[in-house]
Amino acid sequence: MTIKNKQVLLANRPHGWVHESDFNIVETDVPAIKDGEVLVKNLYLSLDPYMRGRMNEGKSYAASAQINDVMVGGTVGVVVESKNPAFQVDDNVLGYFGWQLYGISDGKGLQKINVTDQIPASTYLGALGMPGLTAWVGLISIGQPKAGETVVVSAASGAVGSVVGQLAKARGCRVVGIAGGKAKCEYVVKELGFDSCVDYKAGHLVEDLTAATPDGIDVYFENVGGEILEAVLDRLNAHARIPLCGFVSQYNATQPHAVRNFGALLINRVKLQGFIVGEHSDLFPQAFQELGQLVSSGKLKYRETIAEGIDDAPRAFIGMLKGENQGKQLVKLA
Amino acid sequence: MTIKNKQVLLANRPHGWVHESDFNIVETDVPAIKDGEVLVKNLYLSLDPYMRGRMNEGKSYAASAQINDVMVGGTVGVVVESKNPAFQVDDNVLGYFGWQLYGISDGKGLQKINVTDQIPASTYLGALGMPGLTAWVGLISIGQPKAGETVVVSAASGAVGSVVGQLAKARGCRVVGIAGGKAKCEYVVKELGFDSCVDYKAGHLVEDLTAATPDGIDVYFENVGGEILEAVLDRLNAHARIPLCGFVSQYNATQPHAVRNFGALLINRVKLQGFIVGEHSDLFPQAFQELGQLVSSGKLKYRETIAEGIDDAPRAFIGMLKGENQGKQLVKLA
Repeated sequence: MTIKNKQVLLANRPHGWVHESDFNIVETDVPAIKDGEVLVKNLYLSLDPYMRGRMNEGKSYAASAQINDVMVGGTVGVVVESKNPAFQVDDNVLGYFGWQLYGISDGKGLQKINVTDQIPASTYLGALGMPGLTAWVGLISIGQPKAGETVVVSAASGAVGSVVGQLAKARGCRVVGIAGGKAKCEYVVKELGFDSCVDYKAGHLVEDLTAATPDGIDVYFENVGGEILEAVLDRLNAHARIPLCGFVSQYNATQPHAVRNFGALLINRVKLQGFIVGEHSDLFPQAFQELGQLVSSGKLKYRETIAEGIDDAPRAFIGMLKGENQGKQLVKLA
Repeated sequence: MTIKNKQVLLANRPHGWVHESDFNIVETDVPAIKDGEVLVKNLYLSLDPYMRGRMNEGKSYAASAQINDVMVGGTVGVVVESKNPAFQVDDNVLGYFGWQLYGISDGKGLQKINVTDQIPASTYLGALGMPGLTAWVGLISIGQPKAGETVVVSAASGAVGSVVGQLAKARGCRVVGIAGGKAKCEYVVKELGFDSCVDYKAGHLVEDLTAATPDGIDVYFENVGGEILEAVLDRLNAHARIPLCGFVSQYNATQPHAVRNFGALLINRVKLQGFIVGEHSDLFPQAFQELGQLVSSGKLKYRETIAEGIDDAPRAFIGMLKGENQGKQLVKLA
């Protein structure tokens, strides 16, 4: 009996905003696996802003996808057939199979995960996965926050930002989030325990950020770019640090927003470092240990927005780029 | 007999370009020195781009000057009277007396210097002074150049840039300067030994920089900002480093040049750090040792443009901001 796979392919390179027509959903047969291989049924697909960059041609920090390639992405799944002694049927695994229902692997890069009541499978795509590790590496290794300092994080209610803020709170910092809309800001303050949150959609970003950071800004965890970056640059303290993680406000811009106050980096003797988490895997054991303890003890809070079924992945992805999700955006595949 | 001093005061805060009318030159009497004090006759005054920032009101990395303050600046001079046992008449000293013929000090911050045939007094304001230390700290400590990498430095023929390039050459790097005009570029390549130099005034900066950096850019020592910074950002390699030392193209701009390609710092996972040399004094002994050896052995080349007399300081300062000087800009005071 042939198993039917369903895949989402890149159909067109978007110019500006992504449209559902930029994807093509196809059905294929799952081929028979060979010796050494594992067939995985994916349970959840992670949707992340970086995927927008892969849809472009040209230089980014990762190779761009080709037209008709399966869209890339992290997945958690369950082994349904194995000809690899390291994996058994029913093993839960973290992989990088992309936007499809099934994936075949020779075991390289496939990681067994321990799913428990406290740590559901989807967590390995969020607080315990790439977003959580990204938060840890950027904040702790690059941002180096000290107790009493003011840490600001943009996209504060998102999968990365929510972890950044909670890690900074745990280190005794004053934590200010920036998020779009009243509901996200309330969540960040009331549920996640940030000291304050600035709603950039309220129309007075500069005034609100100034009020929320009376002692200036020592660490800015940057996820968005654009006008929010400029507003933050004007509030930096001497020797501030900026882990530069994402620029999501710019990913769909046909004309990038030019930064008017770059000179603030000189005046304040700022350390800024762009990073992608995969280049800091030496820190993963330490990060994973702290995040794992926080998640399993319920101290690290997170939220998920889950789209149902692979056919809905393009819509959910576009919604995430527009900030419609709450917390980690996932697609439930099975 | 009273000694007559002459001082250059800040008369107005310039808006945009500096004019000679923004300064006021006054004659005063040198007061009698007290116990513990030293009277120094200044021989040379250093003129540096950072002084432009002091003329503004508001936040910069140093306190702004007040109207009618003596303009600040580094000086080398000779002790002409001493009531401080640590200094004797005829001692050569490095001080920070500013734009004036005489200075009085209680000895704090005053440093005896060893003037020789190989190391004339003015060198302590240039290759062996603040500019040389700035080059060393930024390039070596922040830039961390490795043999075979491409190092680009703007304001390449200036007091800082010329040292940056020579230090990078000594470490086996490919060194590309950026300077204004054919004469400066020829000097940088033929006299200082850079591999290449881009004349940003020639009208095809992007094309010329691309041609001069076939393997991209690994370290960019930033002195100028503006369009040159943008052109460099488009040529950065992964994991490039940017010591951010100055922004001289912007110091007289009423509207700062907005940087369109900030995202290159993310894409290439760049480390950028703004710095001022005075905050890195822990590195001075190491830097001074290398620079001293290079200067006294004649291996480190430098050039000076010397204005004659304090009355000419305002004109010379404005000329330096416009790039009219060659190498280190000094004013000979006596």
